[in-house]
Amino acid sequence: MAATVKSSVRVFGGILQRMTHQSAVCKCEMTFAVYLPAQSEAAAVHSLYWLSGLTCTDENFAQKAGGFRAAAARGLALVLPDTSPRGVTIEGADATYDFGSGAGFYVDATEAKWKEHYQMYSYVTKELPAVLAATFPTQLSGKASISGHSMGGHGALTLFLKNPGMYASASAFSPICSPTSCPWGTKAFEGYLGSVEAGKAHDAVELINGLASGAGVELLVDQGSADNFLVGEVDQLQPTRLAEACAAKGVSLNLRMQEGYDHSYFFISTFIDDHINFHADALAK
Amino acid sequence: MAATVKSSVRVFGGILQRMTHQSAVCKCEMTFAVYLPAQSEAAAVHSLYWLSGLTCTDENFAQKAGGFRAAAARGLALVLPDTSPRGVTIEGADATYDFGSGAGFYVDATEAKWKEHYQMYSYVTKELPAVLAATFPTQLSGKASISGHSMGGHGALTLFLKNPGMYASASAFSPICSPTSCPWGTKAFEGYLGSVEAGKAHDAVELINGLASGAGVELLVDQGSADNFLVGEVDQLQPTRLAEACAAKGVSLNLRMQEGYDHSYFFISTFIDDHINFHADALAK
Repeated sequence: MAATVKSSVRVFGGILQRMTHQSAVCKCEMTFAVYLPAQSEAAAVHSLYWLSGLTCTDENFAQKAGGFRAAAARGLALVLPDTSPRGVTIEGADATYDFGSGAGFYVDATEAKWKEHYQMYSYVTKELPAVLAATFPTQLSGKASISGHSMGGHGALTLFLKNPGMYASASAFSPICSPTSCPWGTKAFEGYLGSVEAGKAHDAVELINGLASGAGVELLVDQGSADNFLVGEVDQLQPTRLAEACAAKGVSLNLRMQEGYDHSYFFISTFIDDHINFHADALAK
Repeated sequence: MAATVKSSVRVFGGILQRMTHQSAVCKCEMTFAVYLPAQSEAAAVHSLYWLSGLTCTDENFAQKAGGFRAAAARGLALVLPDTSPRGVTIEGADATYDFGSGAGFYVDATEAKWKEHYQMYSYVTKELPAVLAATFPTQLSGKASISGHSMGGHGALTLFLKNPGMYASASAFSPICSPTSCPWGTKAFEGYLGSVEAGKAHDAVELINGLASGAGVELLVDQGSADNFLVGEVDQLQPTRLAEACAAKGVSLNLRMQEGYDHSYFFISTFIDDHINFHADALAK
């Protein structure tokens, strides 16, 4: 069950390893990356899962986010999964950037065409933690938090909300807050799950609306005010709906509108330290 | 003479702008990037030129080096030139990664085939500063330092040594220290200048050997011990020769062998803060 090392590079005193393994749930070879800070040589460290956005692989965060400095300082491992199954042949999987390859949306597909491979929810929440435990038994504690960007921000918020106790904390950059009410999300849910209605179980706003109480739930969300997916023709992100849902249920949401920032990794790199410190603090409790 | 804005993105409180202009010395449209920290809105700030390595454009450093945090903290502008002329048609210019496109080597070509366009020495030392002064008259002070990586490390060291007083300080990551005695450099000098001998005027070790005294010259160089261009079949970098030349002439060289690091931007990102602080300190004097 352990993954094997594809490549290894030293960064900020630790090691970034790209790993490969045969995924039982996605039924294909999957690649992910793990950053092991120097502290993991002496004792098991906690992890931060980073879920990437549309079109990304494990490499975007590693190359562009500037996250290793703070992770090294706090002794936090980073787990960087891919965003979809790869190397599988499904007609139409490579036709558009927002569905299929690079766009798994962190759900388990139920539609016949996709369900054989597109099981990213189970992959990230079940298989990957088991693979990590088998591969890095002394380096990783198993205790984890979760963050992500855009589609991955949706993933981070929903995986956190759907699995109480699994993650110590959740945060997001420019998340798709309510995928059942935006074009990206409705396309994904219709395609993978057969209906937008079925997507409500994977919609952060809907999940918060369904809470008896949001007491004790704390979220950090950064959103750029000049994000073209927020202020363009279509609002794909809808942070206002997230804020309203959190306010109604008593979820402690620190939603920071960052003036002039866009949707890019330049934006993420500017504020990644705050997120890493937020999670390191939560994991230390 | 002013350049025009190609794109603009907010990062660490400042603005990263990709600029384009018609180059008089390279006789083509050239792209460069400038990071203007927030401090440049109130008063002119000093600049750090970053010269990139083989195959790079202005984008590699911007996306991967993680340099904006320290530049923002120190109020330092970053100037990111391209590594060669672009969009010109010269037979063989795209044939290999280490000569022609993406490999200008920061020299003014004298060979007939290349001299019309490949004038990167004059471009970086003369035309670009003038374009910057015309484009950002209130934001940039004109006072500058210089750094770079690999081929760009060679560029940073040689431009600094050849132009006393032009740059307040120089540093490099894994520089090609003695291009007249390695395959990358001899290929470039034979191609652009007609002989390796002619390349001695663009060889950091040779330039240091030619100093009457190295007193007052201070260099910071980081080199990864696991760099495959250092420890592979061929030593393209030769930091030992640089150290010997500096010792012989009394140049103050802080050569840091960084254990286990390779030639990548992961290595650069780990130590970029030290370089930015080195230059900001020198520019503040």
